Amino acid sequence: MNNITVLKFGGSVLIDDGAVKNAAEIIKKEYEKGKAVIAVVSAQGGMTDALLSEALRLSDKPSKRELDVIMSAGELLSSSKLAIAVGNIGIKSVSLSGFQAGIMTSSANGEARIKDIDTARLKKEISERKVVVAAGFQGVNRHGDMTTLGRGGSDTTAVAIAAALNAEKCVVYSKVDGIYTADPEKVPDARKIKEIDYNNMQELSFLGVKVLNPRAVELARKYSVVLEVRSAFSDADGTVVKEEVSDLEKMLISGVTKKSSIARITVSGLKGTSGEVFSVFGLMSQNNINCDIILQTTEKDGTTDIAFTVSESNADAAAEILKNSGKFDEKDILCDKSVAKVSVVGAGMESHPGVAAAIYEALSEKNINVIMISSSEMRFSVVVKKEDADSAVSAIHKRFY
Amino acid sequence: MNNITVLKFGGSVLIDDGAVKNAAEIIKKEYEKGKAVIAVVSAQGGMTDALLSEALRLSDKPSKRELDVIMSAGELLSSSKLAIAVGNIGIKSVSLSGFQAGIMTSSANGEARIKDIDTARLKKEISERKVVVAAGFQGVNRHGDMTTLGRGGSDTTAVAIAAALNAEKCVVYSKVDGIYTADPEKVPDARKIKEIDYNNMQELSFLGVKVLNPRAVELARKYSVVLEVRSAFSDADGTVVKEEVSDLEKMLISGVTKKSSIARITVSGLKGTSGEVFSVFGLMSQNNINCDIILQTTEKDGTTDIAFTVSESNADAAAEILKNSGKFDEKDILCDKSVAKVSVVGAGMESHPGVAAAIYEALSEKNINVIMISSSEMRFSVVVKKEDADSAVSAIHKRFY
Repeated sequence: MNNITVLKFGGSVLIDDGAVKNAAEIIKKEYEKGKAVIAVVSAQGGMTDALLSEALRLSDKPSKRELDVIMSAGELLSSSKLAIAVGNIGIKSVSLSGFQAGIMTSSANGEARIKDIDTARLKKEISERKVVVAAGFQGVNRHGDMTTLGRGGSDTTAVAIAAALNAEKCVVYSKVDGIYTADPEKVPDARKIKEIDYNNMQELSFLGVKVLNPRAVELARKYSVVLEVRSAFSDADGTVVKEEVSDLEKMLISGVTKKSSIARITVSGLKGTSGEVFSVFGLMSQNNINCDIILQTTEKDGTTDIAFTVSESNADAAAEILKNSGKFDEKDILCDKSVAKVSVVGAGMESHPGVAAAIYEALSEKNINVIMISSSEMRFSVVVKKEDADSAVSAIHKRFY
Repeated sequence: MNNITVLKFGGSVLIDDGAVKNAAEIIKKEYEKGKAVIAVVSAQGGMTDALLSEALRLSDKPSKRELDVIMSAGELLSSSKLAIAVGNIGIKSVSLSGFQAGIMTSSANGEARIKDIDTARLKKEISERKVVVAAGFQGVNRHGDMTTLGRGGSDTTAVAIAAALNAEKCVVYSKVDGIYTADPEKVPDARKIKEIDYNNMQELSFLGVKVLNPRAVELARKYSVVLEVRSAFSDADGTVVKEEVSDLEKMLISGVTKKSSIARITVSGLKGTSGEVFSVFGLMSQNNINCDIILQTTEKDGTTDIAFTVSESNADAAAEILKNSGKFDEKDILCDKSVAKVSVVGAGMESHPGVAAAIYEALSEKNINVIMISSSEMRFSVVVKKEDADSAVSAIHKRFY
């Protein structure tokens, strides 16, 4: 542990000149406490998508290597802009690209993993009392080519740097002032979580809470990096994510989330042999399509139906692959995009059988049909119609708080 | 000499998607002749200025290091876009940043000089029959920080790469289809020069022909790189710039140019000691202000006047510096921005006394006053009122062709 703070600024809090200057003031406050400050930035809001669409105008299938060159420019620009804004209020600062910050990654363009951080340059700059503004989301592979870490990758960069330098904490600035028990825009009585442990936070991230990237939370857990989620536009206390949470904060249910970008695929009329079932998931796996909730039911006629959820963007591909495999009757493959997943996250779910009952009760009072269900030690998820999802979140949240 | 062609694409010929695709087709044609092709690109038209103004919105005086980070993003983007467009028409291609292309420069941000090129990566890529699209205008200094070469620097990058790889030629694509004896938009009977030697071309560049950057021409001469200036939008033969020009092309006058962005500074009433004169130019030099045409005249009362031209952007600073020096009477310093320079370029000017006479005659026929005059072995320049400049170019051009 030393005197280093890592501050991560997302695209929404660097959206325009005013926001960049605001981020510079936040850095200044931390710097004037005597801290060594390393800021990690995303591209300014909307920039990455704009750059991506420019590339796609030139080719339907641009190489992933070139896409990484184009998309990583967004972070280069925002890091330099923030360094300029910090310099403008009288503090020495220097922007560093992923390469200059020593971020060494695997070669998988578009979804690279950080393998190592060469901290020499980072240490040199902070030893000269300079604020470092590092471009998030990017690194270089062993060929010296630019890579990107995938969406939300700037969180991962920030946590990785904090881990490599054994920083005191990593503060993630966004527009929201913490992690809530449900989306506060949909559920008026959602309340902010003061402290949450890595496990619960990771589940919430996976299940749709976008404030923190799940890979970043995983990395924070691995290296015990204390994360803090705060708003860049308010002084309100945020949410601290760490190993051990005070008893006061330990609650059964840490949050209720919604994920709308899913679809349900059903394959019906299977003979029920394990080979058939295997071939369904084998095909998905070969095509890098992740399946989430999986249900297998046996009909009265002895045939088996399989239903599973995939992300909405993979839904058409999943259905096509199954249809084109020649292994199933085309009419038996259905793809339903009208569904959403509502999840309840909390420690020790299974040891509290009352939780499932309470969820069912809350949903039935609102006449919401449960299409699929899945539970694990940490979470309880139901698939409902998309149009029912918000009221399902509200009803469940109300039931528990 | 080997099988390598360097093609340089300026910002005006990469201005939009259509232009980028057009550049890709030009590359394809060259590649299919069996050549190894290295394209060097500028930022898409207007991009560099847009990025610069974004930086200046955040600080009046951003650090030059950060400006280079921001401005060099323009070439990173255009290089990757062109690589994508080339890939899209079925040719393997790879974009390289200045760093990846091995462009090692001095440390002077914003005006770095290329010191060396590490050609390993370039050679590797072309040996795999890939088209390389290198970002022009940029390099890295010995600290691994991004530098830029100053405006027009992409020409220099292209020539430097052509020199380092001993390329057959370096073709510079722009909107115009060659070098003309005068601006064809102003002088209808201006004619295209088929071949021109380095010396004459360099003079033309210095004197306002913007198609080629003078530093690039100097470098081409030093390493005997054959330059070709062509239009990206027509198949017309361009202008070849090389060491030896065929007799047919050797003409007395290779071109008539105009430069409007100048101003005249006069300091009058000097006692005429060399110390005073020195202090004028010493002050200019200390402030990195280049003086062009210099005239010193002695009045009847024994006092001396000094007049010189500077670029228009330096004019106010030059006058201020002289006024604030305390060495001259403020009222004796004049700054006149209403002037322009018209130049005639040709080999052996001095050995043809008729040239000056012909120029004077042409101007006097149009009643154009000559404010200042300067001649050298290679060129003959007159300073006239800005509003007279175009008709001066026409008149002189007509007189010689």
